[in-house]
Amino acid sequence: MSQKIKPSLSKGTRDFLPREVAKRNYIFETIKAVFRKYGFEQIETPAIERLETLTGKYGDEGDKLLFKILNSGDYLKDVPDEVLTTHNSQLATKHIAEKGLRYDLTVPLARYVVQHKSEITFPFKRFHIGPVWRADRPQKGRYQEFYQCDADVIGSTSLWNEVELTQIFLEVYKALKIPVTILVNHRLYLQRIGDFVKQGAITAEIIAAFDKCDKIGIDGVLNELSKYGLSQEELNLLRNVLSGTINYLNIEIQESEEGKKAHNDLSKFFGQFTNESAVIFYPALARGLDYYTGIIWEVVCNGVQMGSIASGGRYDNLTEMFGGQNLSGVGISFGIERIYDVMEELNLFPDTISQGVKILFVPREPAVEEFTYTQVQTLRDAGIGAEIFLGNVKKQKQFDYATAKGILYIAEIGQDEVASGVFRVKNISTREEIRQNIDELLHLFISQQ
Amino acid sequence: MSQKIKPSLSKGTRDFLPREVAKRNYIFETIKAVFRKYGFEQIETPAIERLETLTGKYGDEGDKLLFKILNSGDYLKDVPDEVLTTHNSQLATKHIAEKGLRYDLTVPLARYVVQHKSEITFPFKRFHIGPVWRADRPQKGRYQEFYQCDADVIGSTSLWNEVELTQIFLEVYKALKIPVTILVNHRLYLQRIGDFVKQGAITAEIIAAFDKCDKIGIDGVLNELSKYGLSQEELNLLRNVLSGTINYLNIEIQESEEGKKAHNDLSKFFGQFTNESAVIFYPALARGLDYYTGIIWEVVCNGVQMGSIASGGRYDNLTEMFGGQNLSGVGISFGIERIYDVMEELNLFPDTISQGVKILFVPREPAVEEFTYTQVQTLRDAGIGAEIFLGNVKKQKQFDYATAKGILYIAEIGQDEVASGVFRVKNISTREEIRQNIDELLHLFISQQ
Repeated sequence: MSQKIKPSLSKGTRDFLPREVAKRNYIFETIKAVFRKYGFEQIETPAIERLETLTGKYGDEGDKLLFKILNSGDYLKDVPDEVLTTHNSQLATKHIAEKGLRYDLTVPLARYVVQHKSEITFPFKRFHIGPVWRADRPQKGRYQEFYQCDADVIGSTSLWNEVELTQIFLEVYKALKIPVTILVNHRLYLQRIGDFVKQGAITAEIIAAFDKCDKIGIDGVLNELSKYGLSQEELNLLRNVLSGTINYLNIEIQESEEGKKAHNDLSKFFGQFTNESAVIFYPALARGLDYYTGIIWEVVCNGVQMGSIASGGRYDNLTEMFGGQNLSGVGISFGIERIYDVMEELNLFPDTISQGVKILFVPREPAVEEFTYTQVQTLRDAGIGAEIFLGNVKKQKQFDYATAKGILYIAEIGQDEVASGVFRVKNISTREEIRQNIDELLHLFISQQ
Repeated sequence: MSQKIKPSLSKGTRDFLPREVAKRNYIFETIKAVFRKYGFEQIETPAIERLETLTGKYGDEGDKLLFKILNSGDYLKDVPDEVLTTHNSQLATKHIAEKGLRYDLTVPLARYVVQHKSEITFPFKRFHIGPVWRADRPQKGRYQEFYQCDADVIGSTSLWNEVELTQIFLEVYKALKIPVTILVNHRLYLQRIGDFVKQGAITAEIIAAFDKCDKIGIDGVLNELSKYGLSQEELNLLRNVLSGTINYLNIEIQESEEGKKAHNDLSKFFGQFTNESAVIFYPALARGLDYYTGIIWEVVCNGVQMGSIASGGRYDNLTEMFGGQNLSGVGISFGIERIYDVMEELNLFPDTISQGVKILFVPREPAVEEFTYTQVQTLRDAGIGAEIFLGNVKKQKQFDYATAKGILYIAEIGQDEVASGVFRVKNISTREEIRQNIDELLHLFISQQ
């Protein structure tokens, strides 16, 4: 332990101070309580997965962003000479790294469901909260290690799952006091719209362009698509779709199997939210990822420029990549890091969030420490958080200590207090002082709980 | 996503099923509640640390067990030719891996304290619960990814911290209903004993031999030490120490500065536990690690062969390796994985542990799904966990689903129930049936909370 080094974090990673952990826990606990009430159960999977589980699931770009773990021991021993002499990093990787860090919680879920299918009761409603890792270039708000918070239902095609997951969005954001709008669309609706333009030849391009509507606007989307040589009629149609003049209720939409499915799903879905103005049909919502096949969501915070703070959708064949039977799933994901930022910006964290300890007792001299400790322990034995100050510093430091930890009261103990058993208990924020013995204090704190 | 691979875990890692997560959470929440009551605040540090932070802190053996993360991009490009052509893994590592996974929570704590010292109020009482990673050979009960659960006080030399941490041991194990004995010793006492044998020349060897006493017994320890040519008098002395005939109260012990410190600390410490038979002086307790300098603990479970289920001690100079000022610390660590095994073995987990949902409603046909969903949502809106069964399967499967999830009641909904608003609610375990409408059910469940 002799070599001294300057302490620093690996880039794109963070430490969390106690007050930050308390706030993050407040978000996690709020979400977990709602998940549980709706019958979702928590699972855990390891941070480390086999690279063969992870590779090829996130596209070439994603593969590059996987953190790969060096094999233990003499890992270069059996690497072919020509790989090393040519410094061929790409070829070398499969010889020297078998493991990696998970990139999201979805591929581990797929592996988990196939691997444990005999131990799972279906429909499988699980939630999972934990860190994931991506070797992205770090920038403001983007980290190499960050949390995901997912709930999914696997093995049920019922649209009531979508209704339920939307209720979860509403309930979580209501509990966190974040004003939101829930944007809803259906991948088959977008698919069906594609049918009307160049006989469906550029459906994928249309969906990709719609995905940018938030950034470039309707005109930007149409301008981007115009390079495919669309007719004026086709451009008008797309403009009407994006503005909502044409929507899933139009009769033409229903004249294909996919269109009919989109119409039925969306009609039934919105039928459950007729009194809920926060849930809206949003035709430009496309969601980047390929694998969605039904209703899709994004949640945005009203009045805060932040992008989406939650998202989700229905997908098919989650488990196919691991040889599982064809299971439909639907899931949502809360953007914890952004929710944290929104709550800071809107000042939504409760004041009392880190209040584990009610009172700090400060012994004035070593001779009264034992008496002081006994008072503290009396409160603790009754379930009250209490502390004895064991630093040897100035009075201001003791106040700072109590303030920083969100402790409500402070009481100095000297020989007088030992003799009388009565303490001058100061309220840290109001500076008001009350005189109480330990029984009175105990009752006061119990009444405050 | 086309290539199908058999789903499997990386060796030494684990998935956790919902019922396992619920039990682990029960342990974590119990410990956290006690930590908080005693004024410990939670922090988080990243899983990924710079290798220069980790390397050299755990000895050569530890360095080998660090998981190292391959640099991103063309990591072989600038590795010197001679390193690669000779397949020199050891030399290559520093060129191709800058990051690693944390090996414990102690070195990250040291880094954290130095890095954030201006943001921390001292004495710093923090707890940290999280996974750590070691490239150990996996075997029964030993994993490559496992949890640690630590509480430490940094920057206070007061012995009241030791008393407090011992109270935490007692309180946690009482709450978990695990019968324990807390073994206590002092590193300076062992040091002082060393003075009496060969003028202190083999003190380190004596401590190392004492550490094995649980496995090889007193005779084994003495036999091991006899190779250093001890006199009969010295062997007798060590036998008396190990059996407790000689202890920290003996006057000879106090005739050195270290011995006096050990005597004073232990006397004051045990003075606080005179009525607590679970806290005992245990002269053979040595704790393997070098860095302890004061009182040390190990906690064992009475009647279960499991090794220690918690441990700790006082140490100096935690932060010195990162250029921090000399800060004394004292900390404890709960062996979560072993506590889990003990609780399984002694059947100590409460039955109701995963009970988030009170009732499962099963719609008999699609036409009653909306009605059923409305009933479920009515309960949820009042804070009651409830589910609608959305799988399309046999009645037995519905019961299995409810049973597996620890749901208490089940109610089938058909046209009759829609018409009358009265449900036959079956208790899953007793199979008793009651007839209730939704208001009556709501009141029943609220009264049960």
